Amino acid sequence: MVEIAHLFAKSPLLPAVIVEDATGEVLMLAYMNRESLERTLATGETWFFSRSRQALWHKGETSGHVQRVVRMLLDCEENSLLVRVRQTGVACHTGARSCFFNEIYHEDDGGNGDVRRG
Amino acid sequence: MVEIAHLFAKSPLLPAVIVEDATGEVLMLAYMNRESLERTLATGETWFFSRSRQALWHKGETSGHVQRVVRMLLDCEENSLLVRVRQTGVACHTGARSCFFNEIYHEDDGGNGDVRRG
Repeated sequence: MVEIAHLFAKSPLLPAVIVEDATGEVLMLAYMNRESLERTLATGETWFFSRSRQALWHKGETSGHVQRVVRMLLDCEENSLLVRVRQTGVACHTGARSCFFNEIYHEDDGGNGDVRRG
Repeated sequence: MVEIAHLFAKSPLLPAVIVEDATGEVLMLAYMNRESLERTLATGETWFFSRSRQALWHKGETSGHVQRVVRMLLDCEENSLLVRVRQTGVACHTGARSCFFNEIYHEDDGGNGDVRRG
């Protein structure tokens, strides 16, 4: 049994990896504080905490692109969350399905991805 | 073109989601600072920064459970990384393949997962 209060004792925010349940695609990463985790558990839809706006955020509230939670898993050290969802529409504000579309490394290129070192 | 120096201008650490490339399974979440990202790009194996030990960490250095990087993707806001790898052995120090094995919510249970609220 995991106690929510305990989860946030070390840090006020936990990173949450959001995955499309049907396909396993990683859609986005966002942060949950205690209140957003409680609202997520209570409503079955994802709520996050925006670090830039310092405010709770119900994913899809304005876009309609809500995420219905199928399963949530905590990692072995209890400092990150994996949230398997059914995404309505797309996850990314750019219109992309996943926020992870910017490739910076591919082994077939011998490690020369779209990144400037130094 | 992404500049590494720019990535770490806002925050010294970026969360990195590690996924098994062949299956899409989310294995773990860890943090990279600038030096660990540079070593990852240079060696093709994952390096992280341990927040608890405040030290660089070559994944698998003692266990042999290294992660060969297949692709790396940056998210739309350039504040998190998705790393697709070929995992040797298992990712978790407990011996589990993935660190995410502790289920705290399942919709079929009506939201009554293994978690204590309040």
